[in-house]
Amino acid sequence: MCFIIFAVMSKPVLHTVLSPKLLDIYDCTDTIVVIIDVFRATSTIATALYNGATRIIPVDSVEKCISIGAQTKGITAGERDGKVIPGLQYGNSPAEYPESFIKGKTLVLTTTNGTKLLHMALNAGASDVITGSFPNLSAVCDFLLKENKHVLLGCSGWKDKFNLEDTLFAGAVISRIKEHFSIHCDSSLMAEEMYAQHKDNMLPFIRKLTHWHRLEKFGLEKDLEYCCSVDVANVLPLYKNGALIVG
Amino acid sequence: MCFIIFAVMSKPVLHTVLSPKLLDIYDCTDTIVVIIDVFRATSTIATALYNGATRIIPVDSVEKCISIGAQTKGITAGERDGKVIPGLQYGNSPAEYPESFIKGKTLVLTTTNGTKLLHMALNAGASDVITGSFPNLSAVCDFLLKENKHVLLGCSGWKDKFNLEDTLFAGAVISRIKEHFSIHCDSSLMAEEMYAQHKDNMLPFIRKLTHWHRLEKFGLEKDLEYCCSVDVANVLPLYKNGALIVG
Repeated sequence: MCFIIFAVMSKPVLHTVLSPKLLDIYDCTDTIVVIIDVFRATSTIATALYNGATRIIPVDSVEKCISIGAQTKGITAGERDGKVIPGLQYGNSPAEYPESFIKGKTLVLTTTNGTKLLHMALNAGASDVITGSFPNLSAVCDFLLKENKHVLLGCSGWKDKFNLEDTLFAGAVISRIKEHFSIHCDSSLMAEEMYAQHKDNMLPFIRKLTHWHRLEKFGLEKDLEYCCSVDVANVLPLYKNGALIVG
Repeated sequence: MCFIIFAVMSKPVLHTVLSPKLLDIYDCTDTIVVIIDVFRATSTIATALYNGATRIIPVDSVEKCISIGAQTKGITAGERDGKVIPGLQYGNSPAEYPESFIKGKTLVLTTTNGTKLLHMALNAGASDVITGSFPNLSAVCDFLLKENKHVLLGCSGWKDKFNLEDTLFAGAVISRIKEHFSIHCDSSLMAEEMYAQHKDNMLPFIRKLTHWHRLEKFGLEKDLEYCCSVDVANVLPLYKNGALIVG
């Protein structure tokens, strides 16, 4: 009986954060923050590392991207509002980073939402920062189960607005690991329910989302479908010494 | 054909705001903001007005509640963290305001979440501020259809966190009026889907919510069930000259 009570009480706590603007409501200390930006930063990060990139340096401004790119001889890449930023070499599409191109290289990346949230989580004192999207769903879940720490699932949204693709990924994580965590927040309940409702019809459903409509006009439908494909780039991007590396 | 195009283009825009912290992402000008705080401020407001209160003065601090209560000879009422505030006369339960008590009186009310969001919307320049909850669902929908302006459905949440009961009410409004508005936001899509999924099993579902667990320990289960009852206090609380009156 005592053992059961202890086991229940000792579960780490998991919360889902639906927008970067809500991050400061939560305590990040002693907590793993999972940065989620399904369309497309965290899908691109998983893919580039899976395809052999040495490291990815996430930066929160174009100026830093250019200067750190020069210092590290890295590839500068970034996107604002779904388009490649003038002055940078590449964009934010996972398809731009096949093994034949990215293996052994450093990527310096800035994006509208995901890299911004990552820096917010670091500044808030997160003990570990990792990135997640459907292409590396299993690696994220395995890490969270192994570490057994508190977790914040951080949805990057779009310019601080709620979005559903990040929420669906949070729901996918919750549905896999919930037995091992103490979860009592409506955000997580909603994310899990939305995922349960749409997991078997994900591709038709994502066509209803605002981000799909924003990006499809750039001919990015294939990209977006890839970003919802489970475990196709199943590595764990872990932030360490200023860069995301395979954890 | 021209008429059809014009009719489509001229639809006003509706967004759902999932937390007071997200309000400043949206433009409130020329917009009706619906303040939603199902558990319990906006359920209490509808009920007190339905039962004959002359006006309700929403204030954002206990000090203002006491001083305005003295000036107006009004009843001072308020809640913080689900409990009556020491120094005020009444709490935030709709059951405290039957016709036999409240008719012809002024209520000065301060609450944790709803009255705070109402003042934020006023400060952000909303053209109209109304309050909504399940007890006055039809009155809210009728007003929004009649006015034909842009709409923000503002969920009060709990201390800036997302909550599901306010989201479900937003979904109920959307499901009734969506044909008449241009709606392209993931928050609204999610709210509508969550409502569709739970509208026929609302009372069992609300027992899963964090706010239920927070308030049930004060013996408020009946209150919470009442707050989810459709059209039992079907008036429109409209903010005018510093007070909510029947619109």
